[in-house]
Amino acid sequence: MSRIITISREFGSGGREFGKRLAEFLNVPCYDRELIDIVAKERGLNPEYVSEISESDIQTFYPSTIGHRFSFFNNPANQNVKTIMAQKDLIVRLAQKGDCVIVGHCADVILEDMNPFNIFVYANKDSKLKRCIERAREGEDLSPHQMEHKMKNIDKERQSFRSLFTDDKWGDKENYHLCINTSDRTINNLIAPIASYVDIWFGKR
Amino acid sequence: MSRIITISREFGSGGREFGKRLAEFLNVPCYDRELIDIVAKERGLNPEYVSEISESDIQTFYPSTIGHRFSFFNNPANQNVKTIMAQKDLIVRLAQKGDCVIVGHCADVILEDMNPFNIFVYANKDSKLKRCIERAREGEDLSPHQMEHKMKNIDKERQSFRSLFTDDKWGDKENYHLCINTSDRTINNLIAPIASYVDIWFGKR
Repeated sequence: MSRIITISREFGSGGREFGKRLAEFLNVPCYDRELIDIVAKERGLNPEYVSEISESDIQTFYPSTIGHRFSFFNNPANQNVKTIMAQKDLIVRLAQKGDCVIVGHCADVILEDMNPFNIFVYANKDSKLKRCIERAREGEDLSPHQMEHKMKNIDKERQSFRSLFTDDKWGDKENYHLCINTSDRTINNLIAPIASYVDIWFGKR
Repeated sequence: MSRIITISREFGSGGREFGKRLAEFLNVPCYDRELIDIVAKERGLNPEYVSEISESDIQTFYPSTIGHRFSFFNNPANQNVKTIMAQKDLIVRLAQKGDCVIVGHCADVILEDMNPFNIFVYANKDSKLKRCIERAREGEDLSPHQMEHKMKNIDKERQSFRSLFTDDKWGDKENYHLCINTSDRTINNLIAPIASYVDIWFGKR
């Protein structure tokens, strides 16, 4: 059985870094933004566009203004849905190749039949805010208040994106095998014991 | 700084065993039912009585029928409250002695100022039901339906007991550092990496 580890995460909790470092530690590939680049390439789309609809609010796919004027098959939202489906198929294909870590993109639900080990990474508000401000992209000069608003919005979109695939609620601990609070912690320090936990998880019940 | 680990747990998730084994692994004392015995001894009470009001629904302390007839200081519920306070003081005293694992009794909140490492242990319903039925006390011959009812009630009481000490909700992942899903798992297999996580937690941020 392949060791497939999925990381779901609150924005600013360090979940992306967590996934990357865990994959490095376990010496397996990590898929995160790579998913977007591959889908964009395979479908001849702009990666920016793919990124925008990836893990986005379901409203993005079905703008309310088009509801009555287009049928499903020729409405402008159709491309969005096809792209999401391509991303889903890609996640399955990559997981079938073997051990890996997949960050986000609802991989825990998409790969349910392959028995992944599902981690949820979270943190308190202050800690997420600090991390976000420290790591803001160049030119992204948001006030703490604006950053908090952005954090909330992104998590809300992830929640909504998840609802495309399942009724299970994003972030409910029941849907994950391990929930890790990274508040005030250096991500790298947490990796070794979790890698060992994963090893045991896949080694013996 | 002492390494104080608190275990909160859903009934049937194996949290008590988890705490005991983790303490053994870390070679530190584990306090669980011991708390009840010590309080009973110190206050000259029946351990059964102490056990009954320990982690119980707040209604147990203040039966609705006595509200108007007794003042706080001479009502029959007073003994209950005093016992709970004695238990709280005991938890603080034991934690001040040094490294330990404390299972239940709201120790995560009571010891907040001592920066404990707080674990929440949970599992899915089937797994908890299986564990409860396997470990039922002699003579406790409950049907799965009755056992499920008991499980729910005990968790509800723990939730209510927690509300004596904090507004933070029992079981909300935000209130814990690590949430561990033990569904279909052998508790003992999970201990070593968590002990290592705890070591790192207290060793470096």
